[in-house]
Amino acid sequence: MTEKGKLIVVSGPSGAGKSTVIARVMKDDPDVAFSVSATTRAPRKGEVEGRDYHFVDRAFFEKMIENAELLEHAQYVGDYYGTPKLPAFENIEAGKSVIFDVEVQGAAQIKLKCPEAVLIFIIPSDFSQIEKRLRGRNTDSEEKIARRIETARREYAMAEKYDYIVINDDPDTAANEMKAIITAEKCRASYRKKYLNEVSL
Amino acid sequence: MTEKGKLIVVSGPSGAGKSTVIARVMKDDPDVAFSVSATTRAPRKGEVEGRDYHFVDRAFFEKMIENAELLEHAQYVGDYYGTPKLPAFENIEAGKSVIFDVEVQGAAQIKLKCPEAVLIFIIPSDFSQIEKRLRGRNTDSEEKIARRIETARREYAMAEKYDYIVINDDPDTAANEMKAIITAEKCRASYRKKYLNEVSL
Repeated sequence: MTEKGKLIVVSGPSGAGKSTVIARVMKDDPDVAFSVSATTRAPRKGEVEGRDYHFVDRAFFEKMIENAELLEHAQYVGDYYGTPKLPAFENIEAGKSVIFDVEVQGAAQIKLKCPEAVLIFIIPSDFSQIEKRLRGRNTDSEEKIARRIETARREYAMAEKYDYIVINDDPDTAANEMKAIITAEKCRASYRKKYLNEVSL
Repeated sequence: MTEKGKLIVVSGPSGAGKSTVIARVMKDDPDVAFSVSATTRAPRKGEVEGRDYHFVDRAFFEKMIENAELLEHAQYVGDYYGTPKLPAFENIEAGKSVIFDVEVQGAAQIKLKCPEAVLIFIIPSDFSQIEKRLRGRNTDSEEKIARRIETARREYAMAEKYDYIVINDDPDTAANEMKAIITAEKCRASYRKKYLNEVSL
């Protein structure tokens, strides 16, 4: 019998290095898959359909909402973003753990629909690193940067509702923490009850 | 600031290979210490004071009970067995995780006093392996073996109350599971809250 995979939700403020850590976990563990989101926004340079996003039009997206085909969805700067249910659940049934990279509201929606979801929040050990990375990596106005930092602060306030906090000061250590969490969650007594049930008193 | 270590309680039926798995975890992770129990029974051949047990007399043991120096204790075939608090707590404060090898009643006593304790139950994937190991390793009477198997069944019935079940079909895999559990427990949001508290809104 194949053990079901785990549903792993990963959030974290912009600048926390989420995607690097997720990529390392997936490279090391072939039993981990990534949930590709759907969006109505146009592909950016270098983005690949089916790898970075499923690029769909508004009519298609709204049909998915109507048919309850999304685990969560939100609008952001006029575009839809959402998580298709079917491919994720197929992977989980086949024994693969699936990582969902979603922001804090999306994470809350998923946890509500799937209480067994494991919620991981990624941050550096020191908040000032977020500030530094946000300032370092773009040429935005001071106002825009300030708004991003404010958003990051608001997201931190939600992190206590997560199951785990992974510290990303070094991507390898952070990836090891995330892999350990996935392994440990598969050892949960509630998940492994079947090994006990066969021993009847 | 040193992060506190975790209090790890490990139980499992006789024949589950607990001590081998614990020894491997400790070999791999210098931040894991073992809680040495106290007992009034006489040392067996090869047993070393302070490594296998603290061998004490009844008067000393009863004094420890009276002074609430034990995390848990029980009598077994006329002898006392118990877990001294102080060395374990000193290790935990110093950042070492401490493994307590105790049976199911002792585990319940520890969980009651220390709700933050992490309870791990070790079993092979198939109960018949327990039977095989219990039959294979001793020259006891059929009656004694049957009693041991009955005890193992009773212990299985308690395993659902544990946080995790580690499957020991192969000691390396089992040790990796146990190490992952310790790492994951250190990532719990409740344990890492301090990283959030410094970011005030």
